[in-house]
Amino acid sequence: MDDPNRLSLNLATTRMRWGGTEGIAGAARAGLRWAAPWRDQIAKDGLAEIARALNDHGVAASSLCRGGMFPAESAAKRQAAIDDNRRALDQARAIDAQVLVLVVGGLPPGSKDIAGARAMVEDGIAALLPEARAKGVALAIEPLHPMYAADRACINTLGQALDLCDRLGPGTGVAVDVYHVWWDPDLERQIMRAGAARLLGFHICDWLVPTRDMLLDRGMMGDGVIDLARIRRWMDQAGYDGPIEVEIFSAENWWQRDPDQVVAIAKQRFLEVV
Amino acid sequence: MDDPNRLSLNLATTRMRWGGTEGIAGAARAGLRWAAPWRDQIAKDGLAEIARALNDHGVAASSLCRGGMFPAESAAKRQAAIDDNRRALDQARAIDAQVLVLVVGGLPPGSKDIAGARAMVEDGIAALLPEARAKGVALAIEPLHPMYAADRACINTLGQALDLCDRLGPGTGVAVDVYHVWWDPDLERQIMRAGAARLLGFHICDWLVPTRDMLLDRGMMGDGVIDLARIRRWMDQAGYDGPIEVEIFSAENWWQRDPDQVVAIAKQRFLEVV
Repeated sequence: MDDPNRLSLNLATTRMRWGGTEGIAGAARAGLRWAAPWRDQIAKDGLAEIARALNDHGVAASSLCRGGMFPAESAAKRQAAIDDNRRALDQARAIDAQVLVLVVGGLPPGSKDIAGARAMVEDGIAALLPEARAKGVALAIEPLHPMYAADRACINTLGQALDLCDRLGPGTGVAVDVYHVWWDPDLERQIMRAGAARLLGFHICDWLVPTRDMLLDRGMMGDGVIDLARIRRWMDQAGYDGPIEVEIFSAENWWQRDPDQVVAIAKQRFLEVV
Repeated sequence: MDDPNRLSLNLATTRMRWGGTEGIAGAARAGLRWAAPWRDQIAKDGLAEIARALNDHGVAASSLCRGGMFPAESAAKRQAAIDDNRRALDQARAIDAQVLVLVVGGLPPGSKDIAGARAMVEDGIAALLPEARAKGVALAIEPLHPMYAADRACINTLGQALDLCDRLGPGTGVAVDVYHVWWDPDLERQIMRAGAARLLGFHICDWLVPTRDMLLDRGMMGDGVIDLARIRRWMDQAGYDGPIEVEIFSAENWWQRDPDQVVAIAKQRFLEVV
């Protein structure tokens, strides 16, 4: 793929104004070949409608966001999480997404045992993996920024995610989101360690200074401090040649704007700075 | 030292209501043997007055907070930072602090080159080190949480800080602040790697869920999700037997309360949960 054809619109970026089918149509209007719907958007618009929109607009699903959230305070709840991830696999197949992104989950309520939570994540992915392999959906473990360790994901570095992949084996890999990993002094080495076969996704945005909200103040590429071109070069060198998802959570800025303009700016910035 | 005698009041904890000398007096009233003043408090109250307060109250300085902030956009500004750190060494000596805590600094204005910033940190500490050794003040590199990588400190894990210590040699070590490192899957191993000789400080507070402000919403020990007893055990096993500083930045909660009560609660929690 040449560069413009690699950009994917992660539909979190436009979620305030656009639902799933609207986002897919918007991506197509901007000339994009890819989009990544979220499961809440599928729940709202309907799985068949999302699949049809993708097909009608000639847009492919770069991933399904998201599975995960494995740790829980009881075995029954952990099983319920695994069952929910099984349904996500079926949804991924229904929209021809090759990848299910896993935000693995943080500490169970009341727990301070992060090692225990990490073990629950490993057990949960291990339980899901045979079905994922059988269905041909790769599981992309997304390490989240350490500031989310307690409440969103207890896998917090690329190295830690790859250690997990080493133990779990084929069918697992990683999603590299610059927002979560840009600070990591070991990033280049871990991207090379992952290699093309385990690099299942590449998400872009920017880290703003100051960051006004821990969750919903991500920046547009070029507006922050992440050396996107450098990380992109490492991904290229490691052999990643798949879609590149723009994923911006921005309650006060980008979510407030006209989504068509947001997508146009994202496309321009992608070509200029990534 | 038995446990109650190891607690130190980092004077950031009471900075809204108490200046430096007031904080030292407050620590003494609570029966503490240690306090850690900040340089802005020294600038305000006077170095001789802080030294006298420590002496009068029988309180020892567990550290001086803080040096660092080495990266800058010009050689002249980087030299100015080193010169400022030299003054901090003199201040540390004047109050008999054995340790200068280094918050190393983030990206220079306009820069996206975090590797370059890290090199500036290493150069800055290397330039400071001969004088620090001569004056008998140990330099404690404090890895800061990755959410501060851009604007406060580009050294973000204990392993990274120890790599730096390995290269810089004697006279350098680390300050382990639970707030910054609790999430690190490699934490136990890196504490053991540091060893007693390089463990120069141990700072405690807690990580709240949710965290409402990236800088000023730290929790009191026991109110968050950090397994303080586990980290304390690792520090014990590694041979750390120095002061343990409670350091809580909490604009909306602890900084608003009666500081005498805050110190009393910190002391109680220290004995109960750390």
